[in-house]
Amino acid sequence: MKVIDLNCDMGEAFGNYAMPNDEKLMDYISSVNIACGFHAGDPAVMQQTVNLAIKKGLSIGAHPGLPDLQGFGRREMKISPNDAYQLTLYQIGALGGFVKAAGSRLHHVKAHGALYNMAAKDAALAKAIAQAVFDFDPGLILYALAGSKMIEEAEKLSIVTASEVFADRSYQDDGLLTPRSSDYALITNDEDAVNQVLGFALKQKVKSVNGNHIAVKAETVCLHGDGKHAVEFAKLISEKLEKEGIMIKAPAI
Amino acid sequence: MKVIDLNCDMGEAFGNYAMPNDEKLMDYISSVNIACGFHAGDPAVMQQTVNLAIKKGLSIGAHPGLPDLQGFGRREMKISPNDAYQLTLYQIGALGGFVKAAGSRLHHVKAHGALYNMAAKDAALAKAIAQAVFDFDPGLILYALAGSKMIEEAEKLSIVTASEVFADRSYQDDGLLTPRSSDYALITNDEDAVNQVLGFALKQKVKSVNGNHIAVKAETVCLHGDGKHAVEFAKLISEKLEKEGIMIKAPAI
Amino acid sequence: MKVIDLNCDMGEAFGNYAMPNDEKLMDYISSVNIACGFHAGDPAVMQQTVNLAIKKGLSIGAHPGLPDLQGFGRREMKISPNDAYQLTLYQIGALGGFVKAAGSRLHHVKAHGALYNMAAKDAALAKAIAQAVFDFDPGLILYALAGSKMIEEAEKLSIVTASEVFADRSYQDDGLLTPRSSDYALITNDEDAVNQVLGFALKQKVKSVNGNHIAVKAETVCLHGDGKHAVEFAKLISEKLEKEGIMIKAPAI
Amino acid sequence: MKVIDLNCDMGEAFGNYAMPNDEKLMDYISSVNIACGFHAGDPAVMQQTVNLAIKKGLSIGAHPGLPDLQGFGRREMKISPNDAYQLTLYQIGALGGFVKAAGSRLHHVKAHGALYNMAAKDAALAKAIAQAVFDFDPGLILYALAGSKMIEEAEKLSIVTASEVFADRSYQDDGLLTPRSSDYALITNDEDAVNQVLGFALKQKVKSVNGNHIAVKAETVCLHGDGKHAVEFAKLISEKLEKEGIMIKAPAI
Repeated sequence: MKVIDLNCDMGEAFGNYAMPNDEKLMDYISSVNIACGFHAGDPAVMQQTVNLAIKKGLSIGAHPGLPDLQGFGRREMKISPNDAYQLTLYQIGALGGFVKAAGSRLHHVKAHGALYNMAAKDAALAKAIAQAVFDFDPGLILYALAGSKMIEEAEKLSIVTASEVFADRSYQDDGLLTPRSSDYALITNDEDAVNQVLGFALKQKVKSVNGNHIAVKAETVCLHGDGKHAVEFAKLISEKLEKEGIMIKAPAI
Repeated sequence: MKVIDLNCDMGEAFGNYAMPNDEKLMDYISSVNIACGFHAGDPAVMQQTVNLAIKKGLSIGAHPGLPDLQGFGRREMKISPNDAYQLTLYQIGALGGFVKAAGSRLHHVKAHGALYNMAAKDAALAKAIAQAVFDFDPGLILYALAGSKMIEEAEKLSIVTASEVFADRSYQDDGLLTPRSSDYALITNDEDAVNQVLGFALKQKVKSVNGNHIAVKAETVCLHGDGKHAVEFAKLISEKLEKEGIMIKAPAI
Repeated sequence: MKVIDLNCDMGEAFGNYAMPNDEKLMDYISSVNIACGFHAGDPAVMQQTVNLAIKKGLSIGAHPGLPDLQGFGRREMKISPNDAYQLTLYQIGALGGFVKAAGSRLHHVKAHGALYNMAAKDAALAKAIAQAVFDFDPGLILYALAGSKMIEEAEKLSIVTASEVFADRSYQDDGLLTPRSSDYALITNDEDAVNQVLGFALKQKVKSVNGNHIAVKAETVCLHGDGKHAVEFAKLISEKLEKEGIMIKAPAI
Repeated sequence: MKVIDLNCDMGEAFGNYAMPNDEKLMDYISSVNIACGFHAGDPAVMQQTVNLAIKKGLSIGAHPGLPDLQGFGRREMKISPNDAYQLTLYQIGALGGFVKAAGSRLHHVKAHGALYNMAAKDAALAKAIAQAVFDFDPGLILYALAGSKMIEEAEKLSIVTASEVFADRSYQDDGLLTPRSSDYALITNDEDAVNQVLGFALKQKVKSVNGNHIAVKAETVCLHGDGKHAVEFAKLISEKLEKEGIMIKAPAI
């Protein structure tokens, strides 16, 4: 039976600022990446999101980001590999505390925003992040961009990885994401997005912006959790996958 | 053989701001309470301090504080017990991550500043903090003010406690600290402070500001780490304790 | 002609977190209190909100709060009068910079949340805040709780004040707000709230929870800006006031 | 008579973390750049430093930095020109509030650390920062790296500029600073540093690392304020300048 993981970034509320979709989205996915207080999230949000994810039976990941709440962790910062190691370890530990206290166990780590993108291209940052994951718990899975330096560096440390692909981002002939600066970066049509996810799950292939069918390693699909449409879309994807006999399930640790 | 623990708050540097005494002080004490990034400390400082403490063979505690870097966690905040639980758990987890990654194990937790003082008097806050410690790891020791609500609440959860006394703070006839507002709150004379520590270690007694010898539970003595004189004083205390045949040693977990 | 000011706390978005009501609400009120980055708001939000308020012809106030973004400035902190002076001055200056850069002029200051409530009762804090307002610009108006220490202390410095009352909070026989802990603290019925505002504007009176008509100084009415209902309610109030021939207008500086 | 400005970054303490040199250094310089709370400084430090600078008769500048306290504003962040405009304006306003409240007037603005360096090379950031200065007060002077984009962009807006040079950094034949990565980036010998400052003041020239005498626009010399040696060196420079009949004086506004 074909299996794919659907993951979603969660716990991105902060203090007085709510993120109302989280609970509903959890019905349609298999794993969550929970913000750890640097780019979003706070101790209250983290506890609530961890508890909710446990209740829904989802696999829980730490989602460390850059220390930039105003920029939501999306603005690149020139940090050193040491910085990356330390801020990743700090955030995994903090989120891990809530998971442990709730009697569960951390499943994976996925870097957020600019940290994710920087580490996808920069081997030294990628290595530092992978090392932090390994040092905290070598049994954790690292979710990272398919084909990225993060995957490479994690594998050098024998960390289990999950190659991530995106439901609503288009791909180029080289198997990489179309840059956000392009007019074609985003897939705004639900049917196209659903077909892309089915292609990932069934054939490990994606139709590029040029119409070619490109091989891509697709172990976990990221669904975006913000926006009014997010819950509806997650429901649609999950129904289509079920219909095709594809199981939605996080990778085993 | 008589045994006493000497503890010191450490890792209270931040970014560009150094705390130069930490390493030297570690030669004379048995346990450290390491700041976790809310009132002081940052991921880099935490990693360095944890590694240093391991090298020196000290018992490592998390030292969670209020989220008030400008006020160094010394300004009371009206937080709820839920807030207290969550911020304590977050910070224990974060510090615990560095300890785990370094191949060691967390030994204790001690609240900082206003959080320590508030929880000493407020049973609901004390219970919340004790619960966070317990939920993270019921084997951790809770360091708290001798005779405080924190000790009471921790014991209700069967957490092992270490009753804390102070080398350079004077005591009243009721066994409590003289309030800082008093002219006699601080012991500024080294000889008096040394004698107070010897009294704690040898007799579990303290000479009050009124000259009476009062019983006090003294399992761990807090030495202050800031100020130029701190290292010299720690050295002096440690030499006097050794001379009296008292072993400086953290409580066993 | 009767005149009353309707004010609303605004600019309480932050980074990625939007507060979508602001622009619509501005059509029905006469003055805004804009968050300054400590309890909410950031430089981007401040600029946008200032520019929007200028476009809508509203009187602009700085809305300084405690440095507690997670707690939205609603958790009391034991700050000194010096702290209060400094954080108020800092935030007035910061907001004032955006107002000045946009070619307008700051009109008033209103403390936020716990700072507002603490200063309503604590003369030393009230004096410090009033002094910060005075030192920045003695021509600014201070908005504060009717009958509070803030009003008293501001008047000692000859600062012009605007006594604030609330549309949706009930009052006691002594003219003070019913504490939030009471079941009757909030007025949830629109008609009652509208009548209360009309009473403020027409008679400077309020019907207490015991049914008595109590004199209250009412120069500016605070409307809450959060919640889905907020815009609708502001529209309703503004229409009723207009119908009664009451002008909605900020106090002149 | 020859005139040169000596400036120093100040007010870089934060909360519990002191910067003890500030007051002593003020005896030997003519202008200060005061941190505004983003990379260093807090409202208390800002007030104290402003008051001290006024007492010593120094010209006061705002010293805005990136929002990165842990990194001391030295880590580059990919911010947009809008971000740069907003964070600069916010910080000028905040510092300006303290200056205004103390009855003085803001004299200049100098960006800090990574913001200074990024804007030296990036015209869009430079323009945004210059625009923020201009919009706050077109009479302010902008201190910026001699020969940089910041100087260019400020001049386009007819802002008065002060071209900054460094006492303890070496220069290349092209008149630019030797990169910090080079072994020769820093001048560690006091005599060489003093001679470099005299060369700036007397001849508007600097001896490059290759031994050539290069023209450089030198209107203000930055002295570093940290380190034990800083006060001594400032004293030495000021004595030498006096001996040569060069007046230490900030540019007039």
